[in-house]
Amino acid sequence: MKLKNKDILDIESLSAEEIGLILDTAERMREVSRRPVKKVPTLRGKTIILFFHEPSTRTKTSFDIAAKRMSADSISMAASSSSLVKGETLADTALTLEAMNPDIIVMRHSSAGAPHMMAQRVNASVINGGDGMHAHPTQALLDMLTIREKLGTIAGKRVAIIGDIAHSRVARSNINGLTKMGASVVVAGPFTMLPFGVEQLGCEVASSVDEAVEGADVVMMLRIQKERQENFLFSSVREYSKNFGLTRERLMRANEGAIVMHPGPMNRGVELTSDIADGPWSVILDQVTNGVAARMALFYLLAGGRDADSD
Amino acid sequence: MKLKNKDILDIESLSAEEIGLILDTAERMREVSRRPVKKVPTLRGKTIILFFHEPSTRTKTSFDIAAKRMSADSISMAASSSSLVKGETLADTALTLEAMNPDIIVMRHSSAGAPHMMAQRVNASVINGGDGMHAHPTQALLDMLTIREKLGTIAGKRVAIIGDIAHSRVARSNINGLTKMGASVVVAGPFTMLPFGVEQLGCEVASSVDEAVEGADVVMMLRIQKERQENFLFSSVREYSKNFGLTRERLMRANEGAIVMHPGPMNRGVELTSDIADGPWSVILDQVTNGVAARMALFYLLAGGRDADSD
Amino acid sequence: MKLKNKDILDIESLSAEEIGLILDTAERMREVSRRPVKKVPTLRGKTIILFFHEPSTRTKTSFDIAAKRMSADSISMAASSSSLVKGETLADTALTLEAMNPDIIVMRHSSAGAPHMMAQRVNASVINGGDGMHAHPTQALLDMLTIREKLGTIAGKRVAIIGDIAHSRVARSNINGLTKMGASVVVAGPFTMLPFGVEQLGCEVASSVDEAVEGADVVMMLRIQKERQENFLFSSVREYSKNFGLTRERLMRANEGAIVMHPGPMNRGVELTSDIADGPWSVILDQVTNGVAARMALFYLLAGGRDADSD
Repeated sequence: MKLKNKDILDIESLSAEEIGLILDTAERMREVSRRPVKKVPTLRGKTIILFFHEPSTRTKTSFDIAAKRMSADSISMAASSSSLVKGETLADTALTLEAMNPDIIVMRHSSAGAPHMMAQRVNASVINGGDGMHAHPTQALLDMLTIREKLGTIAGKRVAIIGDIAHSRVARSNINGLTKMGASVVVAGPFTMLPFGVEQLGCEVASSVDEAVEGADVVMMLRIQKERQENFLFSSVREYSKNFGLTRERLMRANEGAIVMHPGPMNRGVELTSDIADGPWSVILDQVTNGVAARMALFYLLAGGRDADSD
Repeated sequence: MKLKNKDILDIESLSAEEIGLILDTAERMREVSRRPVKKVPTLRGKTIILFFHEPSTRTKTSFDIAAKRMSADSISMAASSSSLVKGETLADTALTLEAMNPDIIVMRHSSAGAPHMMAQRVNASVINGGDGMHAHPTQALLDMLTIREKLGTIAGKRVAIIGDIAHSRVARSNINGLTKMGASVVVAGPFTMLPFGVEQLGCEVASSVDEAVEGADVVMMLRIQKERQENFLFSSVREYSKNFGLTRERLMRANEGAIVMHPGPMNRGVELTSDIADGPWSVILDQVTNGVAARMALFYLLAGGRDADSD
Repeated sequence: MKLKNKDILDIESLSAEEIGLILDTAERMREVSRRPVKKVPTLRGKTIILFFHEPSTRTKTSFDIAAKRMSADSISMAASSSSLVKGETLADTALTLEAMNPDIIVMRHSSAGAPHMMAQRVNASVINGGDGMHAHPTQALLDMLTIREKLGTIAGKRVAIIGDIAHSRVARSNINGLTKMGASVVVAGPFTMLPFGVEQLGCEVASSVDEAVEGADVVMMLRIQKERQENFLFSSVREYSKNFGLTRERLMRANEGAIVMHPGPMNRGVELTSDIADGPWSVILDQVTNGVAARMALFYLLAGGRDADSD
């Protein structure tokens, strides 16, 4: 089986079968990172450009390591020092990158839709590394990989997503992916952080964190974007934590064996207490490990698998 | 045949035969970027330092990709975070880099002559990636490679270079290279942007864009440096475009099959209209592709070919 | 023989035997950088993260080149663009990096002790690339390697260290290493730059530069940190140079064949005059060359040697 599209722009464009293929591939790739020689020669001679408009070392480092473990050549381009500052349009930047014959362009951008625009203009595969408040498909894939690793399956599980649903590309991508894979999703958060009509994404809306966590197999805490919500935070970070932070008491309402997730970086004492972050239920660091594996899998499927498979 | 000098500092130092050798080599290298495995092992174990004082991701990325496709180790050093800010002289930086045993140092610097100074102090080969308003030899080489690819030959062709001739290292390097290879060059631009005595560089001066384009085989539009000419631009960008921008009407004066070039990044609607930039005559993206090839060729000739050839 | 600890955090933690092993290994590695193919495959498939909180291209470039010459994958993470700016604690950053399965993390940080904290939390080896005013073990190792190269041995030599002893991690690491290897160390500097009780580190304190240089085999000049001492410098850089700078006249007091060292970057005319920096006694550039070799040796011993040796 192959991926239908040349790009990974959002979870919406992937079928359940394709997500399954990516997760299966990622499981094999995860083993590579545990070997003494953490490298396979599969993508030797492939060029992967990491084009990051927003600084985000965590995600960029994960993509960079993934590229190198596949033996691809990884080229970093910081958008701040790129031609964009000289007034070149993003469309022209896309064509310029394409002219250097890359196989894959990973793009993070503050504007929703920028990776889609890039993808339409280039023959290279484009992977969305997070665009504005729109989508973050590789985060959703690594989250699903982690759930499958820890709970055996995604289908039938109940996932509570807590926090700023309205501004979170992580939430949006996860709601779509998890429901597609057969999970049920319930969201909770401050009234101002729940988008109008969120139910239409296919999830329930709980009126409190307690209600959302009740019976959950997975509790996924979203990061509070201090950058985006300074006023809010300065006045009431303590109140947010009290009403929407995950505590041991709240977690007791979840199912036995429930796991706690966070896309990172965490604000300890805000989204969750330290005993939650460091407890046996926490799979937050497994998410990071799985991030490298999921990205290796995408690189393989986009730059290696499409030609190699005889499907 | 080999290159005479250890460095590529300007086009002036290269003979027509050497330019021919570089272009021939670049044509072979261009094929490498079109293979499924875009890589040759030729420069394995060679160290190439990219030392860029001015931010310029387009050129730096091109050098970086070229180095990796030759299997060299490519090390990026941003001058802003280098010892220069701690008060070390450029001469000491040169000696320090040399002591790390690089094979090639690619250097971009805002001061004309900085790469020459570097080259005198180190045994490594130095490639000028653009120094102030002085020279940009790799740009001229990729431009000549593109003309030869599209028109079959450089000799006998008429090349019009339009824009800010006085402040353009691209123009200076191209005028020298093109006339050396047997082309005739005519320049046009605002009076304040034509250097006094420009004819002594070996080119004609036209009194208008129309006159320059008349009978040209190549129309090379220079980038307006908004960074350098803010006052000018704010008052009369529209007037510049009207008097010196390339339009379809103006291009009609050129020879049949004429090509349009631009070193990028473009200011659409200023140096040229979008129908010119995107039309069949535009070879702007071929220039980018050839940039990688020309730089691979230089790396090969400087770090591989000098020892390997038995000539 | 192997290294006892998984990390290189300071010289204090290394035995004389371990320092000897590192220097022996570095001598072999130094030859690699002199070959036409400057690379050994030893660390293929190993992941080395360069996590630099302070900008310092000289040291970072040295580590980067060392990693690539060992065939390891080298991933640069600028702390300024890392999750630290988003409020993540350093402890969480450590755990996040660890989850990506690196073999070695090289860390430079403005806070003394930060690499130790990192080392306690991760299974990867941590190399301290300089932490605050505390330690800079790789600088001391390359300095010792240089002394051994130039003078044949360290034991029995007299080393004068001149300058801002109190704020120098270079001085602290060198005093410990040199005395451990059997050298005698004497320090001199302005009264305000000599830490109270410095004799307890195992060195003599001279009352003047002349006295310190008298009979020395090595004169090590420390860099004046303009960044840290602006007020001081603006009022009396000339006076500092007059009282504490190394001149030819002063150097005449040293033993015959004495060498002059400086960790770089130099302030010419401040710590030393140009005839001293460029004279036959200067081994300043050998220090840079040995820096790459010493770092290759550490990478080998930490990521390759521990498993490979049967000892």
